[in-house]
Amino acid sequence: MTSQADWLRGTLFALAVVMTGPVLADNKPDDGKVTNFLLDNGMEVVVIPDRRAPIVTHMVWYKVGSADEPPGKSGIAHFFEHLMFKATTNHAAGAFDRAVSAIGGSNNAFTSYDYTAFYETVVPQALEQMMDFEADRMRNLILNDDVIATERDVILEERRSRIDSNPQAVLGEEVDATLWQNQPYRIPVIGWMQEMEKLNRADAKAFYDKYYTPNNAVLVVAGDVEPQAVKALAEKTYGKVARGPDLPPRIRPVEPEQNTRRTVTLADARVSVPNFSTQWVVPSYHTAKPGEAEALDLLAEILGGGSRSRLYQQLVVKQGIAAEAGAFFQGTMLDATNFTVYGAPRGDAKLADVQAAVEAEVARIASEGVTSGELEKAKDRFVRSMIFARDKQDSMANIYGATLATGGNVRDVEEWPGRIRKVTADEVRQVAARYLNLNHSTSGYLLPQTQAGN
Amino acid sequence: MTSQADWLRGTLFALAVVMTGPVLADNKPDDGKVTNFLLDNGMEVVVIPDRRAPIVTHMVWYKVGSADEPPGKSGIAHFFEHLMFKATTNHAAGAFDRAVSAIGGSNNAFTSYDYTAFYETVVPQALEQMMDFEADRMRNLILNDDVIATERDVILEERRSRIDSNPQAVLGEEVDATLWQNQPYRIPVIGWMQEMEKLNRADAKAFYDKYYTPNNAVLVVAGDVEPQAVKALAEKTYGKVARGPDLPPRIRPVEPEQNTRRTVTLADARVSVPNFSTQWVVPSYHTAKPGEAEALDLLAEILGGGSRSRLYQQLVVKQGIAAEAGAFFQGTMLDATNFTVYGAPRGDAKLADVQAAVEAEVARIASEGVTSGELEKAKDRFVRSMIFARDKQDSMANIYGATLATGGNVRDVEEWPGRIRKVTADEVRQVAARYLNLNHSTSGYLLPQTQAGN
Repeated sequence: MTSQADWLRGTLFALAVVMTGPVLADNKPDDGKVTNFLLDNGMEVVVIPDRRAPIVTHMVWYKVGSADEPPGKSGIAHFFEHLMFKATTNHAAGAFDRAVSAIGGSNNAFTSYDYTAFYETVVPQALEQMMDFEADRMRNLILNDDVIATERDVILEERRSRIDSNPQAVLGEEVDATLWQNQPYRIPVIGWMQEMEKLNRADAKAFYDKYYTPNNAVLVVAGDVEPQAVKALAEKTYGKVARGPDLPPRIRPVEPEQNTRRTVTLADARVSVPNFSTQWVVPSYHTAKPGEAEALDLLAEILGGGSRSRLYQQLVVKQGIAAEAGAFFQGTMLDATNFTVYGAPRGDAKLADVQAAVEAEVARIASEGVTSGELEKAKDRFVRSMIFARDKQDSMANIYGATLATGGNVRDVEEWPGRIRKVTADEVRQVAARYLNLNHSTSGYLLPQTQAGN
Repeated sequence: MTSQADWLRGTLFALAVVMTGPVLADNKPDDGKVTNFLLDNGMEVVVIPDRRAPIVTHMVWYKVGSADEPPGKSGIAHFFEHLMFKATTNHAAGAFDRAVSAIGGSNNAFTSYDYTAFYETVVPQALEQMMDFEADRMRNLILNDDVIATERDVILEERRSRIDSNPQAVLGEEVDATLWQNQPYRIPVIGWMQEMEKLNRADAKAFYDKYYTPNNAVLVVAGDVEPQAVKALAEKTYGKVARGPDLPPRIRPVEPEQNTRRTVTLADARVSVPNFSTQWVVPSYHTAKPGEAEALDLLAEILGGGSRSRLYQQLVVKQGIAAEAGAFFQGTMLDATNFTVYGAPRGDAKLADVQAAVEAEVARIASEGVTSGELEKAKDRFVRSMIFARDKQDSMANIYGATLATGGNVRDVEEWPGRIRKVTADEVRQVAARYLNLNHSTSGYLLPQTQAGN
């Protein structure tokens, strides 16, 4: 039931250089115990002590993402990532941002399929002020037609610039819509243009009142703070916000059986080097049987996680046919998730040859499995990544926030290294054989315009 | 805004033999005027006089189909097609069926994306009895756990036998789920197995109370009846049923822009001759700009409607490479619909060659258009199909029922031949060029097992 895997991956990659350097020895992970409690209004709080520097990361995670949107209202979860920075009954638009800047802090927000999160990194003395602002906008946003129209233009422009003008992003959306036959992950987080254009005040008000409540939120505070002090401040600020209506369990439409091999092809004049990806529907940490998600994480790592992986070594280093090749597993999801392999040719190599070589490695790992040496090294990297994550305050906050926002708990995070250690080589081979069946896969191809007819 | 097109097509094909034979001269279409009125409770009534034989077709169309189902509840619309034959507070299960059989009549029901319909063909004297039964089950079904469990087993078995044991049907479902990236037509009418298994009494009750009401139904009576007599009977029977809650407009999620070429492949040991289809998202009679749906209907007819069509003549007759090849346009839909071309090889011909030849014909019609001779012949066939439909009581009832259940009205049906007559050759070429772009299409391939790796 844990789901920190891709946060860990992000951390792992970000720290890849550090891992090989002398900085390694300088790690001083804080070993203060993580505290977890509920406010009376149902808001969950996690405190992660980290006293190495006078800094605090303050995050609020709402258990609502794009996969929770009503039919036809795609983009509304992400719309709130924007609307939350507008005026409230107590503060002008932008006042929160300015307050953070004034004290030399930083802040931002992000939206995913399963959650929407807001965070600030500031000096500990400013924590109460952050909580005040954050508690205020949880319930006091002014959602009038003017605000909606203005900010809707912003998200429409964001879609145009980030998706519609980027062939890789356009392809990605249609691959997702093809891979997922029923589950809401087939809908882009940013929303479909034709639905975003119609989002209105009534939609926004209904969404805000339903999901932006203390009992649907997780507060994560990491840094140079005492749990009891955080609790007192949380009660003083968030504690004043009334509990919202109880939400039903987050049960969403799930995937039917997979029976076909699907492809999605986009040819575009702006593409110079083609690439491909192949995806499979696989269980996430939240939906998997015990040990399966951990085995999928290790499979992705051994098959295609970075430059030590089989795909990189075989295609990029040995055969020299690929400019890139890899694999990843998106474990941190509430529902079933995807396992992806990808590659792009180098020089005169053909995309089809790269794909064939990737598929040969997939077939090989599914039939012959992994060596105990590969497995132990991959486990070491994963477990170490957790230690490195402790060195980065916002990484830990992200791991706990994402885990708790997708149905997991503090113990899931703490026990994850132990569960990774227990995975056997045969379990890795089994998940490869069970899930990575090319006859039930979806491939995306990005091609230069001239290859349109291929 | 009319939507009789595919009913007409069905009729046209069914009567293809009649068209060439001497029976043609014996047609005595009833030219009695179609009457259309509302009961006080909001139930719409259409009466189609046809006095050639002492028979009456009695249909009730509910404006609810699988595309109206709540997320995660797929199959519930079709479930009601079954549940409606179970016990009511006034009649035992099967009593309605037995009453129809006892008087030598016939009855059945069907479910589509946009509607669910129930019908009986009986002697006119039994019309009131039919109305009594039909009005009774509109509101008085006994929906207990026992009924739900028993009938759910029936629909699950129906899915297993009709879909899961038929590779073509399995492929068809996944092609639909791929073609439609957002619109509910991507979900099979019969439902996804994992959702059907969970349909329960609460779901059924909510669906029944919301949609099975007189103000969400259209009564169509065709046959040897007087409109005033039908009105009196309808008021006496259906008129007693209380109006239900007003329903919001049937506005469903619509498709995003199409940007990619997609394929779906299923290889199965039970397949001996492979086949393919290619589909595009196109407007329906309900969503099209004036004239576009009529042009698409004529395009489908000229390109691939039967043995006179270009695809048949070119691939089956001249080149001799195809066992079958054709095209169809599914015009009778509330939302955007699909235009399909298909083919299967004959003898030693390869599927890829058949597909290339079909695509060549599509490209040719999009660039060079159709001849005035082809166009006039296609129009003649379409307009005559409407006359032939008048010769078949249940065809006319179907045409009016489907039209009224998908947002059209009686005039749309009556004016359809005139609108078909007005379509120009250039309009046919234009819809081909506008919509039949292979870079924005979805192809399905059914292959023998041995070709799995192709």
